[in-house]
Amino acid sequence: MSAKHIGRQTLALSYPPSFAGHACVVGKKEGQGPLRDSFDSINNDSLFGEKTWEKAESAMVKEAVSLAIAKASLSPGDIDLAFAGDLLSQCSGTSFGIRGTNIPFFGVYGACSTMAESLALAAMSLEGGFAAHALAVTSSHFCSAERQFRLPLEYGGQRPMSAQWTVTGSGAAVLSSSGNGPYITHITPGRIVDWGITDATNMGAAMAPAAYDTLRTHFDDLGLGPGDYDLIVTGDLGAVGTDILRDFFSRDGVDISQRHTDCGLMIFDRDTQDVHAGASGCGCSASVLCGYLLNGMREGRWNRILFAATGALLSPITTLQGESIPSICCAVAISRTLPA
Amino acid sequence: MSAKHIGRQTLALSYPPSFAGHACVVGKKEGQGPLRDSFDSINNDSLFGEKTWEKAESAMVKEAVSLAIAKASLSPGDIDLAFAGDLLSQCSGTSFGIRGTNIPFFGVYGACSTMAESLALAAMSLEGGFAAHALAVTSSHFCSAERQFRLPLEYGGQRPMSAQWTVTGSGAAVLSSSGNGPYITHITPGRIVDWGITDATNMGAAMAPAAYDTLRTHFDDLGLGPGDYDLIVTGDLGAVGTDILRDFFSRDGVDISQRHTDCGLMIFDRDTQDVHAGASGCGCSASVLCGYLLNGMREGRWNRILFAATGALLSPITTLQGESIPSICCAVAISRTLPA
Repeated sequence: MSAKHIGRQTLALSYPPSFAGHACVVGKKEGQGPLRDSFDSINNDSLFGEKTWEKAESAMVKEAVSLAIAKASLSPGDIDLAFAGDLLSQCSGTSFGIRGTNIPFFGVYGACSTMAESLALAAMSLEGGFAAHALAVTSSHFCSAERQFRLPLEYGGQRPMSAQWTVTGSGAAVLSSSGNGPYITHITPGRIVDWGITDATNMGAAMAPAAYDTLRTHFDDLGLGPGDYDLIVTGDLGAVGTDILRDFFSRDGVDISQRHTDCGLMIFDRDTQDVHAGASGCGCSASVLCGYLLNGMREGRWNRILFAATGALLSPITTLQGESIPSICCAVAISRTLPA
Repeated sequence: MSAKHIGRQTLALSYPPSFAGHACVVGKKEGQGPLRDSFDSINNDSLFGEKTWEKAESAMVKEAVSLAIAKASLSPGDIDLAFAGDLLSQCSGTSFGIRGTNIPFFGVYGACSTMAESLALAAMSLEGGFAAHALAVTSSHFCSAERQFRLPLEYGGQRPMSAQWTVTGSGAAVLSSSGNGPYITHITPGRIVDWGITDATNMGAAMAPAAYDTLRTHFDDLGLGPGDYDLIVTGDLGAVGTDILRDFFSRDGVDISQRHTDCGLMIFDRDTQDVHAGASGCGCSASVLCGYLLNGMREGRWNRILFAATGALLSPITTLQGESIPSICCAVAISRTLPA
């Protein structure tokens, strides 16, 4: 345990870093959803002008990074460190998207928890004095993810109702050691939790125990409850995982439903957009955070948000080998103002 | 730029963390090589008692982590944070290897630079006050890597002489905020460098410019030259990349050959072990560092080592799509004693 530990696993930032700039870039389907007004850029071309879906994903990353840095009134040369990753094998969406920025780079992999992980590491690097400005970015693309994890799109396979729809989107944020907020105040990194779910078309069920583990730990470490946050946002549990998470808490006698929502339930309209159990993908929670949520905090809609991104750490090969799905959830507490 | 920056890109640790324990676990071929006496565990079963190569890789990770923690006289519950990744899609070697330790986890991806990246982040988390003990670990397995990146082993494809042989091995290190060294004193994180190499069987050539960029920056930032280190160890450039790196420096009028070696040239005997241009894989530099190099520092053979791990951030898909190979090199300066 270190001096900055509170309880077992939560890290308190003595000098909470500020969101200096944040931006999100999404595809057509996302641009037709309920959060359409919160995105910085909506591209109706699923290839984003590129020749392949993988290159399209990198193009999104590049655009989101560029917008976030510009919105922070900085240039790439001002960014000391970048933390980024994505779902593709060898995190290639990120590597090819970041290439050319010349920013010193740490690649990360946390599956759909990557935005929280990147933010956590960026915040820690600022507090440690290793950066004045640090970048966190992640992405996903429906088509590159289908090719990576599932079946060729042309096959037209049926999806079970527990499946989620991978968001085409990228979210990027610049954290700075000084600024006017919102601020990251606490981090609860996740432990790998695996309750034996082997169904790769039901990742909400696989990830819900990890979300519970991290949220429960966060509340216990800080002596808080759901009522201490205006919004507790998981991502991306979807409908199935959300029910399971709320059920776990209700067994503890805690009702989180009044304050809890899930990025996988926010970005699409499940009644009209045919996404089954909701949305998923690194780009889901990243583009909800870097648009709707942080904009809403700036507008005063929420003062305290707990952003708890969840990731299923499976690979196509581990699934074929019959393995269960290890999952993780990293939580980042964001406050509009600093305590007096 | 932050207070801890020296020059453009190098980070100086005010409280250099100490290697509290380190261990490496390798396969049969590595156990027959020149460094055989430096490994903690050599397993002659390429499956490490598991049913698949991927599970074998996770078994190595698990063993290396367990040994490193034990050699630090700690238990897994004492480790505040783990930083780890590997070459497999979605870093599954790591996720399944770390699963069960219950250690708060940050997944990283830096291809074969992962050990330096993990050590850098672990060191930064210690200095930032976010951990008292942090773990860095990575792995690779020849057979899982061939399946991931190249052709089925059964195909028996011919390898060009520029190709390198992926090491079957895992290296793990525990860094602690206090201890008797060796210590990490400086970190030079890498930028992505891509000089347009598209040949995935010549990764040494792809990575050499990244190694040059980071080493050149490191020397310039600190006002040092090769003579200030007892050993400058890149990994894994192999024979082709090593020649290119030395040539780059010689154009600057700097001869690094007297102090430079490469992990890819150390772990196998190229005359007798048929590995073409040398070794590669996350597990190569990790198992050379966590055995031969750190043991040698403890024995007084070297006082100052610059450990510069290199990674080729390609994926099988980006290669098929004709993309070039973005590369990165992260350097970590290690000192047996602290300056008075």
